[in-house]
Amino acid sequence: MTKWVYTFGDGAAEGAAGMKDLLGGKGANLAEMSNLGLPVPPGLTITTEVCTYYYDNEQTYPPELKDEVAAALADVEKIVGAAFGDPENPLLVSVRSGARASMPGMMDTVLNLGLNDATVEGLAVLSGDERFAWDSYRRFMQMYGDVVLGVAHHNFEDLLELIKDEQGVELDTELKAEDWKTLVGRYKEMVEEELGKPFPQDVHEQLWGAIGAVFGSWMNQRAITYRRLHDIPAEWGTAVNVQAMVFGNMGEDCATGVAFTRNPSTGEKLFYGEYLVNAQGEDVVAGIRTPQNLTVAGKDAQGSDDPAMEEVMPDVFGQLDEIRGRLEAHYRDMQDIEFTVQTGKLWMLQTRAGKRTTQAALKIAVEMCAEGLITEAEAVTRIDPAALDQLLHPTLDPDAAREIFGRGLPASPGAASGIVVFSADAAEEKAKAGQDVFLVRIETSPEDIHVMHAAKGILTSRGGMTSHAAVVARGMGRPCVAGAGTVRIDYQEGYMMCGPTTVKAGETVTIDGGTGEVMLGTVPTIQPELSGDFTKIMGWADKLRRLRVRTNAETPHDARTAREFGAEGIGLCRTEHMFFEGDRIVAMREMILAEDEAGRRAALDKILPMQRKDFAELFEIMAGLPVTIRLLDPPLHEFLPHGDAEIEDLAKAMGKDPADVRASALRLHEANPMLGHRGCRLAITYPEITEMQARAIFEAAAEVQKKSGDTVEPEVMIPLAATAREIEILKAVIDKAAASVAGETGVEIAYLVGTMIELPRAALRAGEIAASAEFFSFGTNDLTQTTWGLSRDDAGSFLDAYQTQGIVERDPFVSIDVDGVGELVQIAADRGRAARPGIKLGICGEHGGDPASVHFCEQVGLDYVSCSPYRVPIARLAAAQAAVMSADDHKENR
Amino acid sequence: MTKWVYTFGDGAAEGAAGMKDLLGGKGANLAEMSNLGLPVPPGLTITTEVCTYYYDNEQTYPPELKDEVAAALADVEKIVGAAFGDPENPLLVSVRSGARASMPGMMDTVLNLGLNDATVEGLAVLSGDERFAWDSYRRFMQMYGDVVLGVAHHNFEDLLELIKDEQGVELDTELKAEDWKTLVGRYKEMVEEELGKPFPQDVHEQLWGAIGAVFGSWMNQRAITYRRLHDIPAEWGTAVNVQAMVFGNMGEDCATGVAFTRNPSTGEKLFYGEYLVNAQGEDVVAGIRTPQNLTVAGKDAQGSDDPAMEEVMPDVFGQLDEIRGRLEAHYRDMQDIEFTVQTGKLWMLQTRAGKRTTQAALKIAVEMCAEGLITEAEAVTRIDPAALDQLLHPTLDPDAAREIFGRGLPASPGAASGIVVFSADAAEEKAKAGQDVFLVRIETSPEDIHVMHAAKGILTSRGGMTSHAAVVARGMGRPCVAGAGTVRIDYQEGYMMCGPTTVKAGETVTIDGGTGEVMLGTVPTIQPELSGDFTKIMGWADKLRRLRVRTNAETPHDARTAREFGAEGIGLCRTEHMFFEGDRIVAMREMILAEDEAGRRAALDKILPMQRKDFAELFEIMAGLPVTIRLLDPPLHEFLPHGDAEIEDLAKAMGKDPADVRASALRLHEANPMLGHRGCRLAITYPEITEMQARAIFEAAAEVQKKSGDTVEPEVMIPLAATAREIEILKAVIDKAAASVAGETGVEIAYLVGTMIELPRAALRAGEIAASAEFFSFGTNDLTQTTWGLSRDDAGSFLDAYQTQGIVERDPFVSIDVDGVGELVQIAADRGRAARPGIKLGICGEHGGDPASVHFCEQVGLDYVSCSPYRVPIARLAAAQAAVMSADDHKENR
Repeated sequence: MTKWVYTFGDGAAEGAAGMKDLLGGKGANLAEMSNLGLPVPPGLTITTEVCTYYYDNEQTYPPELKDEVAAALADVEKIVGAAFGDPENPLLVSVRSGARASMPGMMDTVLNLGLNDATVEGLAVLSGDERFAWDSYRRFMQMYGDVVLGVAHHNFEDLLELIKDEQGVELDTELKAEDWKTLVGRYKEMVEEELGKPFPQDVHEQLWGAIGAVFGSWMNQRAITYRRLHDIPAEWGTAVNVQAMVFGNMGEDCATGVAFTRNPSTGEKLFYGEYLVNAQGEDVVAGIRTPQNLTVAGKDAQGSDDPAMEEVMPDVFGQLDEIRGRLEAHYRDMQDIEFTVQTGKLWMLQTRAGKRTTQAALKIAVEMCAEGLITEAEAVTRIDPAALDQLLHPTLDPDAAREIFGRGLPASPGAASGIVVFSADAAEEKAKAGQDVFLVRIETSPEDIHVMHAAKGILTSRGGMTSHAAVVARGMGRPCVAGAGTVRIDYQEGYMMCGPTTVKAGETVTIDGGTGEVMLGTVPTIQPELSGDFTKIMGWADKLRRLRVRTNAETPHDARTAREFGAEGIGLCRTEHMFFEGDRIVAMREMILAEDEAGRRAALDKILPMQRKDFAELFEIMAGLPVTIRLLDPPLHEFLPHGDAEIEDLAKAMGKDPADVRASALRLHEANPMLGHRGCRLAITYPEITEMQARAIFEAAAEVQKKSGDTVEPEVMIPLAATAREIEILKAVIDKAAASVAGETGVEIAYLVGTMIELPRAALRAGEIAASAEFFSFGTNDLTQTTWGLSRDDAGSFLDAYQTQGIVERDPFVSIDVDGVGELVQIAADRGRAARPGIKLGICGEHGGDPASVHFCEQVGLDYVSCSPYRVPIARLAAAQAAVMSADDHKENR
Repeated sequence: MTKWVYTFGDGAAEGAAGMKDLLGGKGANLAEMSNLGLPVPPGLTITTEVCTYYYDNEQTYPPELKDEVAAALADVEKIVGAAFGDPENPLLVSVRSGARASMPGMMDTVLNLGLNDATVEGLAVLSGDERFAWDSYRRFMQMYGDVVLGVAHHNFEDLLELIKDEQGVELDTELKAEDWKTLVGRYKEMVEEELGKPFPQDVHEQLWGAIGAVFGSWMNQRAITYRRLHDIPAEWGTAVNVQAMVFGNMGEDCATGVAFTRNPSTGEKLFYGEYLVNAQGEDVVAGIRTPQNLTVAGKDAQGSDDPAMEEVMPDVFGQLDEIRGRLEAHYRDMQDIEFTVQTGKLWMLQTRAGKRTTQAALKIAVEMCAEGLITEAEAVTRIDPAALDQLLHPTLDPDAAREIFGRGLPASPGAASGIVVFSADAAEEKAKAGQDVFLVRIETSPEDIHVMHAAKGILTSRGGMTSHAAVVARGMGRPCVAGAGTVRIDYQEGYMMCGPTTVKAGETVTIDGGTGEVMLGTVPTIQPELSGDFTKIMGWADKLRRLRVRTNAETPHDARTAREFGAEGIGLCRTEHMFFEGDRIVAMREMILAEDEAGRRAALDKILPMQRKDFAELFEIMAGLPVTIRLLDPPLHEFLPHGDAEIEDLAKAMGKDPADVRASALRLHEANPMLGHRGCRLAITYPEITEMQARAIFEAAAEVQKKSGDTVEPEVMIPLAATAREIEILKAVIDKAAASVAGETGVEIAYLVGTMIELPRAALRAGEIAASAEFFSFGTNDLTQTTWGLSRDDAGSFLDAYQTQGIVERDPFVSIDVDGVGELVQIAADRGRAARPGIKLGICGEHGGDPASVHFCEQVGLDYVSCSPYRVPIARLAAAQAAVMSADDHKENR
């Protein structure tokens, strides 16, 4: 039979820290602290499985639940020595949510539950403080009325204000016991009037009302939104903790506080926290009174005159400090704790791993390792790889004022300011004049690449996290906000608008590419500094990981950046990105519009030396590391001239009639270019393009190998194959080029020919394909597009609705869809390995830089991931974590 | 060890008719006839595996082959009593190709091989006819020189003309032995001059040269093209038959002929054929002399004066007629035979199943069944389902003259003529005036549907076999030629051009939708007649098949047509096709451009009664048969106004600014609409559309059920799902509408809610999806697009190259790609059934009417196929054949 309720308290518990999935974070840690013998007010945890049951069964509970709660409550009564609802000696409880992952403030809490007209008198006698008892009662009514009964907050506030007016006082603390008593009476009347029935006096009715409210709050809009933003699945559910109340507000020997076992901003090993004498927990958070420092050192550092807890309650502080040490030793991590002192006795209310800045996370991990608390492997797993982005890019000064203009997707991290330009010409002109240029476009296309390079930051109004702008910006490390759908851009008039605000060309904006915010004017930024801790952790990560990490790069600048960040080769060099500048685009267009093979070859002959030079530079920078070069991939019409002026220029250059050029361009138009004449389909119909590219690769390799002595390892990659035959045909073309070049230069190059697996059919037929292909690189961008039938450029209009309605947990272009796309990757890997044991397998989609996807790659046993340069450290760290987790799994399965 | 060579002759053979894959059709049947004891000149067959080996091993032979051929040739020598290369008593052989499937005239043949300067003398002595011997030698040299040595044919012709001039004669037959001798001498000189080496005198060199030429001809351009047109895989390879020569040209007691055991045009049970006295086989085909009838009846029917073989050689004819009976009894099918009579002795050179018209095929099958030769099941398997198209559509009069204008894809069968129109307005105007209108468009879109209905035929210059025009035309039974890439259409000037020829609006053209030909002017057509044989065969098919056959239809006309053709329900009603006429498009556009849900609902309220009426009509026509209705599927922008005039009209109707309407239309534009905001993605973001459609379905069902008493079985189909959650959400909307309507009308409708499986992810997650979906319909058009990453509208530009290079055997949009798309269908079927035993499974892509795909559906065990109305008979027959084959397979496996 399922056990639905777990008790804790009095030095023992039915649960433990490892049971977070079942008990939630709070419940599991309360149990753990009880087991450690720490002073924890006793209580019970209703499991997350009840929450799941509740939503699966039309908001009803398992039939056994009532009895289990009653039995557990009886245990609590026994420990506390009080009885729930007993007018003489009442047990009061708090009822709080507690999900697997922390969701601070998102769900409902009720304190002081168990008070009614009878028990309030008992509390008054026991505490010897009538004012405290009635204040507690009215606080409970207020909270319960709002949270459980749904009576609007302001109804309570209004009556409170009224009585203060009547008594001529300004502060709550000035009200007396009698006043609170009067207020309670008025609250009762008001609630009855609002609801048509009285405020519940039955404490069990109170309890079940509160439990229902907590479960109900799991599906409130705030919680849903929070979960979506933090990738928390709705199926996890929340637990409910019912715990005996302790009071920090029963007098001057009472207090309440929160603390971190180390400094969460810097990571320094200093006890760090705040407390308030004679207060309840929410007073610390509410900010009505200024909390005081825990320690003298903290007080001094802040230049505060208020006495530290260390001075005011030295004994209790001593106990707390001792517990701090025990908790760190036990949890082997920095803890965020909550405590209450009731008449001189310390009670622990919560402990959990403390949130920290990335800098602090690095320092804490490195120091705890030095202290012998944790191993290097553990230290590595303590850093959130995604958070490294903070360290690699400038961030906005958190103290600076900011005026929000609009919002989009956080497409490429970092903060940047510049003057707005809408066109390439304007950008180049202003950038040449030394100005900081900020590029604003509806969307970008490959020919915008050099302007994107010249810009400090980029904003687009269309496209998703893997739109052209996003991918290229991440590759370059340029901050970018993409798909800001509410921003309307008018190129012709030279302005953009969001709501009532207009920004004209030449005005300044700032973006935060990590949050998607667009701000007016210049917001000051802070430059990142890479600490020794970072270097140490990355070094440990490199020792631990099995997956190699390469980069997606095609410019020397990106390749160099990636090497500095630790890339171990190029996993994806998109040759088409090399074709958009100056002479090249003209030669390229001549090639595309040529009427026959001879015409194409003439144009390709002009392109060959340029490509050769490109490849030679990359080979030099990569100095013996493998370089995967993808053959021309995009539909040809991407290269075509736009607008009459470009068409006429090109026609002139080609000696053709502009009408013919226009007709040719129209003929190349496609209804769905993503599914059209591109990838190896170009190579099959125009093998001379492949011939030229292969020749450029091998000539460059021969040249660099001769000059540098490094063995150049080109991996020639055929894109968008659906069949084995495509690879066979094109491999023959490539092998022939290699043999020719080897004959001409006398240099033998050890190259591989492989393919992208980016179509479902390729994944399914991987066995046949591996007969010719010597490596697979999973192009998970396109594989996601085809597996889902979802264009990344068009998904923006509904993906948000899909996330809100729980259809997709995360954007499948950002984090790999393990269930769908993942199965195809697994199938392809299995079949590829069966046909060609030891076949080299990698991934080169945007997922290569996403930690969750890197974990998946480790599970499937790929050889490497490849990602944009600025994501290389993230991938290195994620790969190490995946290796550690995978080793742990193996241990468990042994 | 592999056996590479099989012998036959003298009443015995190593092979048999069942070994066609290995021996080719000719070789297998020669072996079979030998085994039957028929007079077959002895010989040997080199297997198709040698061909495969040859191409896999850089055009070399298996090492054992030489010895095996030599041994087999020795057997032949023994039977014939002559020796290969023996100057006294020479064995002469023919060397012919023989593939699995007949490829008439596509590959090379060499006759009279074994003649040289010595053996020719032996032949002269043996035959007692010097002229015959030297004529045979020169014929051999001519054939061998052309086929094996590559000396151009005209070189031989020129010398032959020269000698005729010299001798002052006009006909070959007037030349004497001496002349042939002279000519042979000149041939030898000419060949040596051309090649730099003499014509081979070594008969073994001759033999291996000829064998190599036959294998080589498997890859000649003609053969490649033929295979592509007839879907013959290149891997099959050809066999080579080396057979002792017999001569029909050794005198007046010699003859040669071809015959069918029944009339191949009408199917009547009459011996039907032609012969020539004193001639070689090629003379019958070459048409230099007019062949004579075999039978007196045939002669009389033709009104010929030339004597029949029955009269001239009554004995031999008697033998042949007896063999005719034996062959039919043995092969249990109409045979196409070749024979030669050498000095009064009959020799059988070939037998194979005879090609026949569809009409003849039906009659032969029905009569053979009546004769007890074959079973009903066999009769059903004898008809090529695809050929039924001929019977259902008008065809061009084969005797009429035709002037070809251009060519495209044979997109929808049938012949049609009409005056060319380029615009919808012109078409409607002229059609109203009673003219036969022929629609010419670059491509069609959903809003062209009513014009397509009004037109007699359709021609497009863009798009493939599953382009919009092709799919819709097939559905309507309108002849259509699609994707005529060489035709340039100028709407503005109102003409189309192909090469130098121009056709203006108002001029007449004719198309043959079965061949893809476009002709100038009117070509007379023949109306089809459905015979009693057709009805009988279809009746047998219906008894045999397991698969149900439904139709894709949304208009009452199509639904009625389909029922007449035997459809057992509607498998796909595409609701979007119902939205393009009159008021509807306006209401639809209002819906799309509405600013909020209220605006959308107002527009949907206008559409509801129209949809309800549509559905009611279909339910009435289908009278209790299941009707699958797909919810709105295409991207919304397909419905948007085009051009300024339409935009202004709409703006006026909506009371909006044209600029706003234009901006909204632009906002809805998508880069890859096929992968965009369509299918259930529309329903998720605008559930009110689904609500309206579900309500229309259930209201119509309630109305018809009440009125007719038939149980209406609507199946509501959710398109383009990728996840189970989408189905869950939308099923809730549909169920709610059903419950409301049931409450309002008091009529309970037994409906199902299911989904199209048309994305790879849906196939993979079919288990989860089947938890909510009560049926799956495989949308293999879109599934092919996504599995291959191939847009059917854009594939035209390279699919041809893909077929030519052997990358795809057949257009995957026409015949299902069993290896790729098929595996996904199998996975989905397996997982769907595991999750929901007995789940209803069907297919509703264009593949539902393709016989090979229907076979696949039978193998996977689907419940039904659905296809366009005119393909229903094809699907019924194919389904029966698949059932028979599947039963045979089961027997074999028992």
